[in-house]
Amino acid sequence: MRLEISVQLIRTVRAKRPLVHHITNYVTVNDCANACICCGGSPVMADAKEEMEEMASIASALVLNIGTLNSRTLESMEIAGRAANKAGTPVLLDPVGVGATKLRTESVQRILDRVEVSVLKGNQGEIGVLSGTGGDVKGVDSGGASDPASAVEKLSEELGCVVAATGENDYVSSNGRTLELSNGHPLLGCVSGTGCMLSSITGTYIGANGPSIDSVAAAISVFNLSAEYAAELSRGPGTFKPALMDALHNFHEESVSRARIQEI
Amino acid sequence: MRLEISVQLIRTVRAKRPLVHHITNYVTVNDCANACICCGGSPVMADAKEEMEEMASIASALVLNIGTLNSRTLESMEIAGRAANKAGTPVLLDPVGVGATKLRTESVQRILDRVEVSVLKGNQGEIGVLSGTGGDVKGVDSGGASDPASAVEKLSEELGCVVAATGENDYVSSNGRTLELSNGHPLLGCVSGTGCMLSSITGTYIGANGPSIDSVAAAISVFNLSAEYAAELSRGPGTFKPALMDALHNFHEESVSRARIQEI
Amino acid sequence: MRLEISVQLIRTVRAKRPLVHHITNYVTVNDCANACICCGGSPVMADAKEEMEEMASIASALVLNIGTLNSRTLESMEIAGRAANKAGTPVLLDPVGVGATKLRTESVQRILDRVEVSVLKGNQGEIGVLSGTGGDVKGVDSGGASDPASAVEKLSEELGCVVAATGENDYVSSNGRTLELSNGHPLLGCVSGTGCMLSSITGTYIGANGPSIDSVAAAISVFNLSAEYAAELSRGPGTFKPALMDALHNFHEESVSRARIQEI
Repeated sequence: MRLEISVQLIRTVRAKRPLVHHITNYVTVNDCANACICCGGSPVMADAKEEMEEMASIASALVLNIGTLNSRTLESMEIAGRAANKAGTPVLLDPVGVGATKLRTESVQRILDRVEVSVLKGNQGEIGVLSGTGGDVKGVDSGGASDPASAVEKLSEELGCVVAATGENDYVSSNGRTLELSNGHPLLGCVSGTGCMLSSITGTYIGANGPSIDSVAAAISVFNLSAEYAAELSRGPGTFKPALMDALHNFHEESVSRARIQEI
Repeated sequence: MRLEISVQLIRTVRAKRPLVHHITNYVTVNDCANACICCGGSPVMADAKEEMEEMASIASALVLNIGTLNSRTLESMEIAGRAANKAGTPVLLDPVGVGATKLRTESVQRILDRVEVSVLKGNQGEIGVLSGTGGDVKGVDSGGASDPASAVEKLSEELGCVVAATGENDYVSSNGRTLELSNGHPLLGCVSGTGCMLSSITGTYIGANGPSIDSVAAAISVFNLSAEYAAELSRGPGTFKPALMDALHNFHEESVSRARIQEI
Repeated sequence: MRLEISVQLIRTVRAKRPLVHHITNYVTVNDCANACICCGGSPVMADAKEEMEEMASIASALVLNIGTLNSRTLESMEIAGRAANKAGTPVLLDPVGVGATKLRTESVQRILDRVEVSVLKGNQGEIGVLSGTGGDVKGVDSGGASDPASAVEKLSEELGCVVAATGENDYVSSNGRTLELSNGHPLLGCVSGTGCMLSSITGTYIGANGPSIDSVAAAISVFNLSAEYAAELSRGPGTFKPALMDALHNFHEESVSRARIQEI
């Protein structure tokens, strides 16, 4: 069954301009900030534990990305996560490189144990590893999953939250419903941090629209459709990235009709 | 009264290539480094406390930006600031997000108490908050100020330094003189870190020309005029940023005739 | 004697897609990641000491860049370096800003004392300082070296590793052979982090091909030839950077015939 994205989700993001608090890595943080702005949000990056509760209290969503975690920022993630839970603010976790090292695996477990995560979003390798259904992680790159659709479904049931796994096709599952999304472009795999950018955009969408499977599917679709458009204006990964930001900023609501989403 | 920018200020920056020591945030640091280079400076980013005194002693200006401060970098800012004061090196403080959290407000106060700041430069919301005349801060974005002209004037008098507040119009005040600058482009508000970039450019200008109101007004004008030019070559915020760097690098001295500055 | 680059070195990088573990600075880290990807590698940036041994054990090369070092990351560099040595993984050290402060000079010495470095690569100022033959460092920019060819030769003999010094001409030395490379473009000097990007590309080349003088010369040539091509498509430093990434990604093997390398 082919599904449609409601344009209302896009309008709400742009109208509300949600403040999205990020505790993220220093590799892709600038692209995350710009992706958040271009899709309609207001990013704030802050990781000092002394200000975590206040930032969580004024933010509309919290994005936790463990790409370059250390003991200091991990502590801040826990404090911010619990404060967000208390304030009813949705939390997105991107378990970058989980499975590559014990530190990453234990840190993800620790966050999941102590913070109620609304959306867990990783690449197929990471989600495959976390679900136990099989996945391959090469550093912070995905080596793929044996069955990404089952992985998101199983993990969503276990954790009681929305789970998304990105790759050539993307999978999202929540409450027993699982979607397969088939937009995007190979150049997304040639730029560092496109997964992180999508986490920030998804954080922006759940900040404005709440942490539903529809919010997450809309965020993925807007990002992937923007990538398709940007690729036409690019000569390679270098010019693709600014074109992607332009496409996110200039995204026309009617473009959602090109979204290929089906319930599986 | 309409004022003019002296082209000599631009020439001096390019001739001296001042070394600008930054302790800044990890979100926009790369854009700050490139903006500094493109306008004629040589940036060095260093924040280990062990090397703060030496860096301050060889630099022509020090830029302190609290965008992602923590206890470690705050200590380094104080050490570097005092060393810069001892060496007679001008210090610019960008109080990113002041008012959003207690940590930021107290840290700015702590720096102002212990370091002689030559230029305080923030967005209108931040300067409005700091001046006590009223301002609104949303995370690290400006929510505007009730009266930005009065804010810079009052704060400049209180602190005895140059104070600048940026927004749709920009305001700079020093020694009882207050300027209103009216160049720029809306795309500056769609890219993360344009305020940080301007702080780095201003640091470069005061490093070469000294911390006068004229240096600060020239830096703001060069940046805003470059933005106007870049916008013509852009399709959105993504392509605007590289075009802005190009425009800074290729800035023609005669373009300053397009600067709209008046004393108010 | 004019030398040629073997296209096999380029093919091997692209075929193996080596995982390159970076402990690097937060200024240019995103460009390093993208340069690594564009030339054919898979970058992972991680600096928490708890995961250094595991990352080193799965990586094909380790790049240590002290651009924004502090006591925490310095400790991680040592742990990762020793683990890489144990695993037989080649280690590249970029001694950014060595000579500018005591901390940088001592940290480079400390790493060289405790870690077997396969490739030492800096700008001419840094390598001149380290070799003792004379060099000038302005913050993290090169002020040039009195005799860069002698500097790489002397340092290579002393350390028993490949040493490269970059500048208008680039010099590489190993086992008594010294090469002079004469490609590149002045715009490389107008963008922050081009030296760091080249370190990441060199790390990628030694990860796939081993730490020989040929691997290092190939990496430098591919980078410089890409820069020559990118410059033709640029209006300044801003548009040059994305064009450089495109050129790295789209690099044609036959372009190596334009490499100007001679043994001296």
